[in-house]
Amino acid sequence: MIAKTTKQVRTGKTRMLFRKKTARKTPVQITGQKEKLKIIPLGGLEEVGRNMILFEYGRDIIIVDMGLQFPEEDMPGIDYVIPNISYLKDKIKNIRGVIITHGHYDHIGAIPHLMPRLGNPAIFTARLTAGIIRKRQEEHQNLPKLNIQEVNEHSRIKLGVFNLEFFHLNHNIPDSFGLFIKTPVGNLVHTGDFKLDYNPVYEKPADLNRIAQIGNSGILALMCDSTDAEEPGHQISEKEVGIELEKIFEQAPGRIIIGTFASLLSRVQQIFWIAEKLGKKIMVEGRSMKTNVEIAHELGYLKFKPETLVDEKNFREVPENKLIVLCTGAQGERHAVLMRIANNEHRFIFFKTKDTVIFSSSVVPGNERTVQNLKDTIYKHDARVIHYQMMDIHAGGHAKQEDLKMMIRLVKPQFYIPIEGNHYMLRINGDLGKAVGVPENNIIIGENGRIIECQKNSCKLTAKTVPADYVFVDGLGVGDVSQIVLRDRQMMAADGMLVVIATIYKKTGALVQNPDLISRGFVYLKENKKLIEQIRSKAKKIMHDSDTKSPAFESYIKDKIRNDIGQFIYSKTKRRPMILPVLIEV
Amino acid sequence: MIAKTTKQVRTGKTRMLFRKKTARKTPVQITGQKEKLKIIPLGGLEEVGRNMILFEYGRDIIIVDMGLQFPEEDMPGIDYVIPNISYLKDKIKNIRGVIITHGHYDHIGAIPHLMPRLGNPAIFTARLTAGIIRKRQEEHQNLPKLNIQEVNEHSRIKLGVFNLEFFHLNHNIPDSFGLFIKTPVGNLVHTGDFKLDYNPVYEKPADLNRIAQIGNSGILALMCDSTDAEEPGHQISEKEVGIELEKIFEQAPGRIIIGTFASLLSRVQQIFWIAEKLGKKIMVEGRSMKTNVEIAHELGYLKFKPETLVDEKNFREVPENKLIVLCTGAQGERHAVLMRIANNEHRFIFFKTKDTVIFSSSVVPGNERTVQNLKDTIYKHDARVIHYQMMDIHAGGHAKQEDLKMMIRLVKPQFYIPIEGNHYMLRINGDLGKAVGVPENNIIIGENGRIIECQKNSCKLTAKTVPADYVFVDGLGVGDVSQIVLRDRQMMAADGMLVVIATIYKKTGALVQNPDLISRGFVYLKENKKLIEQIRSKAKKIMHDSDTKSPAFESYIKDKIRNDIGQFIYSKTKRRPMILPVLIEV
Repeated sequence: MIAKTTKQVRTGKTRMLFRKKTARKTPVQITGQKEKLKIIPLGGLEEVGRNMILFEYGRDIIIVDMGLQFPEEDMPGIDYVIPNISYLKDKIKNIRGVIITHGHYDHIGAIPHLMPRLGNPAIFTARLTAGIIRKRQEEHQNLPKLNIQEVNEHSRIKLGVFNLEFFHLNHNIPDSFGLFIKTPVGNLVHTGDFKLDYNPVYEKPADLNRIAQIGNSGILALMCDSTDAEEPGHQISEKEVGIELEKIFEQAPGRIIIGTFASLLSRVQQIFWIAEKLGKKIMVEGRSMKTNVEIAHELGYLKFKPETLVDEKNFREVPENKLIVLCTGAQGERHAVLMRIANNEHRFIFFKTKDTVIFSSSVVPGNERTVQNLKDTIYKHDARVIHYQMMDIHAGGHAKQEDLKMMIRLVKPQFYIPIEGNHYMLRINGDLGKAVGVPENNIIIGENGRIIECQKNSCKLTAKTVPADYVFVDGLGVGDVSQIVLRDRQMMAADGMLVVIATIYKKTGALVQNPDLISRGFVYLKENKKLIEQIRSKAKKIMHDSDTKSPAFESYIKDKIRNDIGQFIYSKTKRRPMILPVLIEV
Repeated sequence: MIAKTTKQVRTGKTRMLFRKKTARKTPVQITGQKEKLKIIPLGGLEEVGRNMILFEYGRDIIIVDMGLQFPEEDMPGIDYVIPNISYLKDKIKNIRGVIITHGHYDHIGAIPHLMPRLGNPAIFTARLTAGIIRKRQEEHQNLPKLNIQEVNEHSRIKLGVFNLEFFHLNHNIPDSFGLFIKTPVGNLVHTGDFKLDYNPVYEKPADLNRIAQIGNSGILALMCDSTDAEEPGHQISEKEVGIELEKIFEQAPGRIIIGTFASLLSRVQQIFWIAEKLGKKIMVEGRSMKTNVEIAHELGYLKFKPETLVDEKNFREVPENKLIVLCTGAQGERHAVLMRIANNEHRFIFFKTKDTVIFSSSVVPGNERTVQNLKDTIYKHDARVIHYQMMDIHAGGHAKQEDLKMMIRLVKPQFYIPIEGNHYMLRINGDLGKAVGVPENNIIIGENGRIIECQKNSCKLTAKTVPADYVFVDGLGVGDVSQIVLRDRQMMAADGMLVVIATIYKKTGALVQNPDLISRGFVYLKENKKLIEQIRSKAKKIMHDSDTKSPAFESYIKDKIRNDIGQFIYSKTKRRPMILPVLIEV
C-alpha cells in the first residue's frame, strides 16, 4: 500500500468536474442481485493496435486507451481502423473518464474521432502523453477542447466506483504507466505496453518494488501486454542499443542519416547524447519527428544542448563527418523523410557516397518489402545502410517471455488476462501464465467485444458480446466505407472493371447504337481491340435476343450481361473484371 | 582439371542435336577486333526471383535459368512477373541451349511462357529438376514438347564456344548445381542458389574439392548467390533441423500437421525418416506437395517405405498420435491446404484440440501478416502452433556471410559478380568479396538489362543496356497488362471509381435526362444519397454551362467533369476516386 498522499492528487477536482459535466451523481444502485464488473475489450485483443477496454460497474464506466490500427492488406484505401463504440451510445452519461497509458498511436490515435461522440469525457494521462495528445488534436479542426488531467505515479484518482493508481513501467516512449484499478469486486492490474528495463535511458527503471507491493495487496486479475509473448528470453535494454550506436557513429566516414520512429523518444535521447559526446551536430527532419522532439524537449523529457541542433539554414557549415540527420521513415513510409531523400524529392538533402544510413527500428510486420525497396534505392545512391538485423541497434518496447513471467510472479493474480496482441499472441502469453502457476481455468483468452464478468474471486469469459467490428477511417469519412465497398475495391484491384452501356429507345426497346464499353485496370484497350470488339458484339447480341417488353427486362438484361460477358471474358483471359451493365432509355 | 571422362558425357549427342535444330553451324567469326563476352542479366539482379542470365559470344548465346518473380504489393491482380526477352528476338537462331541450375520457380517458372518464343532450345539440367519441369509443363496445354537433356556432375557439354561442367552444391532442393563455364575469354563460375551443408539430408555435401580444383584452373569471374549475404555466420545444416523436428514429433500429444514448401524436398525426406523412426504414418495433402513427393520418389530422390503413406481412404484407421499430415501452406497461401483446414474448407481434415501444427519454413518477406492471421485462426481451433521462430525448425537454403567468403576463397576469381538478390544484397555481397581480397575495382554490382563485357583478364560493367523491365503474367495474358493498367487498378483500389454518364441530343446538345452516376469502391451509395445528388447537380450544371457547339466540346466537357467533380469530391471526402466521364449522343 502506498500510504503517502502527495500534492499531485487530483481526486477532488476530477470528481467535481464530472459532477458538472454529467449533471447527475446518484450513487451506484445496489440491486438485490450483486452487481458484476464487466470488462469489455473493444479492440486490441485480436490485433496489435486499436487498443480500447471498458470497465463497467453499475452506472460507472471507465475507458482505458483509445487507439487506432493500421489497415491490413485487404483494406485498400483505408487510412486506419478505430474501435466500434456503439455499445456506449446510450451510456455516455456513465463514462467517468478515459485513461491513456502512453502516447503511441495504437493507444491515442482514435481520440480525435471518438471523443466528440463520447461527450468529451476527461482524459487522465501522464505529462508527456498529454503533450502528444494535445499536439495531435491541433491537426483536427473544429473539435471541442480536450479536458486532460495529468497524473503521475503518486496520483490517486476516483472515477465513480473505481479507484485508480499508476505505476511506472518502461516502454520505448517515456511516461508509460501501468494501472492499478480498485473495483468493488477486487483489484485489477493493467500493464499497458511495457518492458522491464534495468538500464533505461533518461528515465527510471520499471518500479518493480511498487509492482510487488501492489501484488501483495491481492490481485483478482492481471491484464498483460502480449506483443512479444512469442519471443524467448528478456528484452534488451535501451542502454545496450546506445553502445552499438556509438560504435557506428564513431566509425562513420561522412554524414549519418538515422531513421527511427518519431515516438521512440528514448532512442532519440541516446542519439543526442552520443552526438554530444562525439562533438557532432543534429538536424531533425520530418514533421512528426520535429513535433515530438519539440514537445519532449519542452516538457523536459529530452535533454540536449541548444548548440547541438542545427537547421536547414546552417547545417551546411557543419563538416560532413560531424553531421547527423535524425529523421522518420525507417519503415519505408511513402512520404517520410528517408523515402523522400532516397527518391531525390527532399528539398535540400541528397544522399552522398560517404553517407551512413542507419535504420534504427525493427520492421513492423507487413512493411518488409517496402523496407527492402528503400534499402535498394539508398544503396543505388552509393550510401551505406546499417540495419538492426546486422547489429543490435534496436531494442523492442515489449516484455519478452521471461519478463512476462516476472510480471506475473510479482503481481500474483488469481486470474490472468492477456491483452494487446493477435489471438495467437494472447494464447502464447496465456501459456506463460500457466507455466508460472496460474491455474489453467483462470487464464482468460478474450476476444474483442466479448464481455468478461468478474465477481469477488471470480472472472469469467461470457458468451455475451457487444459490437466490436472494424470502423474504417477513409479521408474525412468515419464508418462510411463498408465491407461491400472494400470488396469492390479488392475486385477492381485484382482484375479491373468494365462498364457496358446500352442505350435503347424507350418505345421500341431497340438499341440506339452499339453498346459503349469503358474499361479500366482490365486490359490495355488500345492493344486489345479484337477482344473489345468481341465483347461489344456479344453485348449487342444479348440485347437483340431479349424481350424488351418483359416487365423484368432491366434486371434480366443486366444479369445476363454480367454473367455471359463475364464468362466470355474469363474463357478468353482467365480474368474476372467487375462488370457493370448500364441501361439508358431515351 | 577433371581428367576422367565418364559414361554420362553427353557432349556428342548434344552438339548433334543443335546442328539439326539450328540448321547452321558456321564457326564463330573472328573479326579484326577481338570479340568480347557479354554477360546480360535479364532478371534476378534487383529482386529475389526472375533469374535469367545470358552469356553471348559472337553468334553463340547460352541462357542460365528462366525463372519467375512473385508480384509486389503495387502489382494488384498480377499472377507473376517474368523476364523480358526482347533482346533475343532477332537472335533466336544463336541460342545454343538453356541451363537450369535447380527446380525452384524463381529458376524454372518462366519456361512455359518463354520457351515457345525462343524457338524451344534444348534445356540442360539435373534429373530431378528435369522431372519437375516436365511435370509443370503438363499444366500448360498446346505447348511444344520440351527437349530436356539430363546432365550431372560428370557431364561436359559444349554449346557453341562455351564448354560447360557442373558441380554439386547444396540448396533446399536436391540436385542443385553450380556451373563451370569455359569461354574464349576465360573461365566463369556461376553458383546458382546454394548453401554449403556438411551434413545434408540424403544427398552429398557440396563438392568443396571440386570447387577448389575449378578455382585452381584460374577463374576470370565468379557469379555468386546474394540472397543471404546480409546474414552473418554460417547457414545451419538441414540435419540439425531434423534433430529439432524429432523432439517435437515425439512430444506431440495428437496429430501433427506440418506445412512447408513443396519444393523443400530435403525437409520432406527428414519428415518421412522421423515418421518411420517413431512408427508414425504420413498423409500428403496439397497438389504441389503430392506432385513433388511423387516425382522425387519416382526418381529416387525421396526414400520411404510404402506402408508409411496413408491416404484419404485409410487415414482414419491410424491412431491420432501416429498421424502426420504433410502439406503446403506455411506461407499463409490462400488456397493451400493449411489455410483450407483453418477455414473449415478442407474436404476431410478439421483441426482438433490436440493437434500440433508446425510451420517448417521461414516467412517470405511480404507474407508476415498473412501468416500471423493464419496462426490466429489455427489457435482459435485450439490447436497448437510451433513456428520456426520458437525453435530451430528451419534451415535456409542460401549461403550466409561466412559460407560466401569460403566460396570466394575457394574459387579465387579475378572478378566478383554478385547475383540473385535485391540490389542491396548484391552490394553487401560485394563487400564480402572485398573483405576476402577481391580488389574493389574488380567487384561488379550489375543491374538487370545492363551488359557486362569481359575480355581476357578484364570484366567491365558497361553503360549499354537491353530491355529488362517487368513482363506481367495475368491469367492467360503475358505482357498485356501495362503500367497504365496497373496504375488504374491501384487508383481504383485506393478510392474506387465513379462513372458519370451524360446523354445528350446530337442536334441540340441538350441533356436527355439527368446524368447517370455509377460508382464502386468509393462510398456506399445507399447511405450517401445527399453526396450523390450534389455530384449529379454539379454534373448537370457543367453540361448546361458548356457550349455544345464548340468543336472541342467532347474533350473539354470530359476534362471539366473529371476536374471539377474530382475537386468537389475531394473537398467533401478527402478521397480521389477515378472519375470516368461518358458522353452519349442520341
